Amino acid sequence: MNPRLPDALGALAAALGRLPGIGPRSAERIALHVVQSDPGGVEQLARLLVEARQRVRSCEQCGALTEASPCVLCTSPTRDSSVLCVVERATDVLTLEKAGVFRGRYHVLGGRLSPVNGVGPEDLRMGELQRRLAGGEVKELVLALGTDVEGDATAHYLAERFGGAAVRVTRLAAGLPAGTALDFADELTLGRALQGRQPLV
Amino acid sequence: MNPRLPDALGALAAALGRLPGIGPRSAERIALHVVQSDPGGVEQLARLLVEARQRVRSCEQCGALTEASPCVLCTSPTRDSSVLCVVERATDVLTLEKAGVFRGRYHVLGGRLSPVNGVGPEDLRMGELQRRLAGGEVKELVLALGTDVEGDATAHYLAERFGGAAVRVTRLAAGLPAGTALDFADELTLGRALQGRQPLV
Repeated sequence: MNPRLPDALGALAAALGRLPGIGPRSAERIALHVVQSDPGGVEQLARLLVEARQRVRSCEQCGALTEASPCVLCTSPTRDSSVLCVVERATDVLTLEKAGVFRGRYHVLGGRLSPVNGVGPEDLRMGELQRRLAGGEVKELVLALGTDVEGDATAHYLAERFGGAAVRVTRLAAGLPAGTALDFADELTLGRALQGRQPLV
Repeated sequence: MNPRLPDALGALAAALGRLPGIGPRSAERIALHVVQSDPGGVEQLARLLVEARQRVRSCEQCGALTEASPCVLCTSPTRDSSVLCVVERATDVLTLEKAGVFRGRYHVLGGRLSPVNGVGPEDLRMGELQRRLAGGEVKELVLALGTDVEGDATAHYLAERFGGAAVRVTRLAAGLPAGTALDFADELTLGRALQGRQPLV
């Protein structure tokens, strides 16, 4: 940090530098912009920060980010209540909604099983999931989890605990990303794509 | 912007996206971080933003960013009052101070002459500069301006208006940046470096 920065400017730059994706140089640049810009705009940004933190919370049913709980994804009558997509984080719901490819409802786990980091089933929203499945409306759990070891472990745990005659448990396909050439794919991806090959005729 | 973002989150992301160097994707990422992080930290960031804007202002003498006016650069007894470095923007003072190569005092113009954009001498801090020179203490004006056409025009104007027997007007050397090879320099830079060549023996 520049020792010649006025104290208030240095303190602001340090706080900005703790936000994700903002390094010390960008933080200083933004802080310099702030102290030289319209005071009304700065006050508005400060207000939006506090308001967003106060208003946005987790939906008590699915766990997605929302201002009203239960959220619009849980209450919308046009979405399919028989299919529940299980994701790790609230932001994963936004990613899937942006893609616009899923029309069922969601359940945010709040993480994934990680014995190494001391994360067990009781640390995730498993009880909430069990209660939702007890309603009997859900026929399929679509697991949209990460494709690493912890994602795999979480998927197996969910399949074993909740899968059965009443509820089918599926997982997003593993394979080649769209729009790439073979030589961009690593060995593990190629292996999984081969395992999951699909008949064309 | 993601249509599925809760309103308060979308509004925050839009405001963050207006800061320099933050694109729409980073803005959304930061907004998502904010609504999921410690409320105390968010309130502190909001307070630092408003405080920095309120406390940091321009030094009434030199124009640099400061919390106390006149600033420490103007009042420090260890700096040379006979040399005044003229810069375009308040942030240029910070850049030079970071480099630690100048021990005189500063004068921020607040821009440069640009007839195309309707910026004339009366739009810059020329009157303040004239008043400072009238004191008779300043013996040299070092122009640390940009090296493009408008920087050149501003330098010539300053030299003509303020230069003379009492005040020497100099400009930062134009030439090769330190630590680069010849083939990284453009033709204009090479031309100026040749013009300004220095005797070694």
